[in-house]
Amino acid sequence: MATLYRSAPPPATRSAGPEFAPAGGRRHIGAMRPNTFPTAPDTLALERGAVLAPRFNVEGLIAAVATDARSGEVLMLAWMNAEALRLTLETGEAHYYSRSRQTLWKKGETSGQVQAVEEIRIDCDQDAVWLKVVPGGDGGACHVGFRSCFYRVVENGALVERP
Amino acid sequence: MATLYRSAPPPATRSAGPEFAPAGGRRHIGAMRPNTFPTAPDTLALERGAVLAPRFNVEGLIAAVATDARSGEVLMLAWMNAEALRLTLETGEAHYYSRSRQTLWKKGETSGQVQAVEEIRIDCDQDAVWLKVVPGGDGGACHVGFRSCFYRVVENGALVERP
Repeated sequence: MATLYRSAPPPATRSAGPEFAPAGGRRHIGAMRPNTFPTAPDTLALERGAVLAPRFNVEGLIAAVATDARSGEVLMLAWMNAEALRLTLETGEAHYYSRSRQTLWKKGETSGQVQAVEEIRIDCDQDAVWLKVVPGGDGGACHVGFRSCFYRVVENGALVERP
Repeated sequence: MATLYRSAPPPATRSAGPEFAPAGGRRHIGAMRPNTFPTAPDTLALERGAVLAPRFNVEGLIAAVATDARSGEVLMLAWMNAEALRLTLETGEAHYYSRSRQTLWKKGETSGQVQAVEEIRIDCDQDAVWLKVVPGGDGGACHVGFRSCFYRVVENGALVERP
């Protein structure tokens, strides 16, 4: 169904060239590749097509859930803008967009909890992505210090820490 | 840390009384319990407190990721408003909010894919919930017909169906 689209995203590569250097120094440098993805022309293409056509929300963001590729545990739910998604695809390391800091954010850049992406999936209406990752550093993903951000269970209306 | 809060949400129950009847007929009936949750007074309470204090976005929604309680597979990512979260806690069956239809939505109401909730977790900053569910009906969760909404993998920039 790729023929339904006028433009396709660049293939994901892991080139070591300067264009794909770690995001740290590139944040405010004009990217050589546009952060654009095509728009699916119809529901069939959106749901069954072979072209990645993510639907970003009005803020330009898409939800991203990261699970541990080994344990399957949900580690975190975060957001990506088009650049974060593109960099994730190109580098194989998870990039997100911080809504509070309003900036691109390579996971693990300061914490060491870099997320090597084993697989990326997208859902039926292409407004959410699922990353299976192998966390680096101490193996965690949460700034509070737990492995997963979801370290609390709701029990009888109250929260119980059960990491 | 419950004492930090002025009000606490009602305890989750599975009462069979009319107040907790299936959501179908109650959508436009004034709920007997308010759809309000407390607000955490500070970061410590938010991240380590025992009080459920979900942070809904400007649209009044919180992201919810549902995984299969048995396989661990991510089934779907959807949204809840306060009423959907309250009903999920009270009934033990997943309720969401449809942004496109702008209405509360009990999962499986028409498809039969009712989601029995085994566990609900909330993340560090309480703006996302994780539901471990046992899907009813045909065991699926996706309107397209796949078990999971995430039936496509991104490979070399293209989408490949791999349910």
